Amino acid sequence: MKTYLDCIACAIRQALDSVRLTTNDEQIHEQVLRKALSFASKLDFQQSPPEITQQTHRFIRELTGVEDPYLEIKNRFNKSALEMYPDLKKRIETSSDPLETAVRLAIAGNIIDFGVSSVIEQSQVEETIAQSLTAPLDKEALERFRNAIAEASDILYIGDNAGEIVFDRLLIEQLPLEKITFSVKGSPILNDATMEDARIVSLTDLVNVIENGSDAPGTILEDCSKAFRQRFDEADLIIAKGQGNFETLNDVNKNIFFMLRPKCVVLARHLGCEIGSLVLVSYDAKR
Amino acid sequence: MKTYLDCIACAIRQALDSVRLTTNDEQIHEQVLRKALSFASKLDFQQSPPEITQQTHRFIRELTGVEDPYLEIKNRFNKSALEMYPDLKKRIETSSDPLETAVRLAIAGNIIDFGVSSVIEQSQVEETIAQSLTAPLDKEALERFRNAIAEASDILYIGDNAGEIVFDRLLIEQLPLEKITFSVKGSPILNDATMEDARIVSLTDLVNVIENGSDAPGTILEDCSKAFRQRFDEADLIIAKGQGNFETLNDVNKNIFFMLRPKCVVLARHLGCEIGSLVLVSYDAKR
Repeated sequence: MKTYLDCIACAIRQALDSVRLTTNDEQIHEQVLRKALSFASKLDFQQSPPEITQQTHRFIRELTGVEDPYLEIKNRFNKSALEMYPDLKKRIETSSDPLETAVRLAIAGNIIDFGVSSVIEQSQVEETIAQSLTAPLDKEALERFRNAIAEASDILYIGDNAGEIVFDRLLIEQLPLEKITFSVKGSPILNDATMEDARIVSLTDLVNVIENGSDAPGTILEDCSKAFRQRFDEADLIIAKGQGNFETLNDVNKNIFFMLRPKCVVLARHLGCEIGSLVLVSYDAKR
Repeated sequence: MKTYLDCIACAIRQALDSVRLTTNDEQIHEQVLRKALSFASKLDFQQSPPEITQQTHRFIRELTGVEDPYLEIKNRFNKSALEMYPDLKKRIETSSDPLETAVRLAIAGNIIDFGVSSVIEQSQVEETIAQSLTAPLDKEALERFRNAIAEASDILYIGDNAGEIVFDRLLIEQLPLEKITFSVKGSPILNDATMEDARIVSLTDLVNVIENGSDAPGTILEDCSKAFRQRFDEADLIIAKGQGNFETLNDVNKNIFFMLRPKCVVLARHLGCEIGSLVLVSYDAKR
């Protein structure tokens, strides 16, 4: 997905939010802001929004020397999601359609995304989970997803954020584990999950987990490692979580199911839905 | 008031909103956006937010050739406010404290401001009027205002927006008319009132109306005409309406009463109040 003009003001605000999280030094806030403005003024808007965020966060790391400003946030949300895990697991197992319930919860978990919001409360996560169990979901897409899982022999599940990956684990536990590879980012960006998070939530004990070699908050294939790209090419089904993966992969000609909660008006308009709705969509059939 | 770092993303969004109102040509939207980003990256943040808006709107006029993109909006809100005028006039005259009611309505009228929002509905105006009659208002400031009016011999009332000036007229009708000069912008900027609007709402029949010689959405004294600055200096009491006038005059050492509804979190935080509250404040006593 290209960067809409509306994305720019949001990216500028996000850069400021992020640097404030990293340091209280207002001179550095101003430096990052000016650099982000100057960078955005010359940007190729055919690039996707995560490419801008990737660049901006590189400035922030350079200027602050802080490699992982969201570390505390990631640990907090991993912990609170793990605390919810037993109850959510029970809900899935006792539901009339465990796969559907697990899909709903996996999408609900996508609320834990610090790319658009800079503040997310645990109460919002709980509220989102409750709503997700009954919110509208494209049942036809769900059936296609169910069939695609059964037919696929090699599934790449591209994760999004720390905390959220506990919800991914719940879904993965409903899938044929031997078919699944789960991927995380190559290094820290926003609150996106890395290998360390996959270990913390024990995904590494469940399935093969790989790094994508990139520090973009999405999947920019040309920025990923050769090994990841090969794994991506080999997979006959991709599950891609979250807004950043949608924005970077929605034009890729591949059998991909996207699962996300749209977090901004631009993406909601692009998808023809409301902010915060449950999105399960695949574009394969349209090609 | 200086420009807070948070103001920048908002100014970028506002530039895009404004150019979209002016033309459907997406290439021009992109040109304006890039120019605004580049301009903001080099900006002196000691300048006030209206100085940024002034510059941005100059680009927009240059690139589009449209001198007054808000003309239709200004006419619409002048008309709808004039339709409300007889009823509001009656409410003031039958109230137990006509000056207080008129002050409340004058502040309520400040909702008609396209500087922060790009869409304002008539229903919001009506709702704001209804709320303003009972919303909290600083009574001590109101008494100081009442005394200041009685003591002053030469009052400059600095208007803000078209439509809103009908509400200013209602307040002015409660003041000693012979003391009042009303000022409007020198040329179009956003939906700020110009001499044409003052004529449309008959303020010109009521008091002396002058132009300030500037195209800034506020009162940047050094950008105003010499005649206006002289009038400003001579006045022993200034009434300044709206956020833009606050942002440009709040550091000026003069007997000024500001009346406004704060429209963004930055100004609300600066004032220590909520967005949309009724603000009647003078800084004279503190100097």
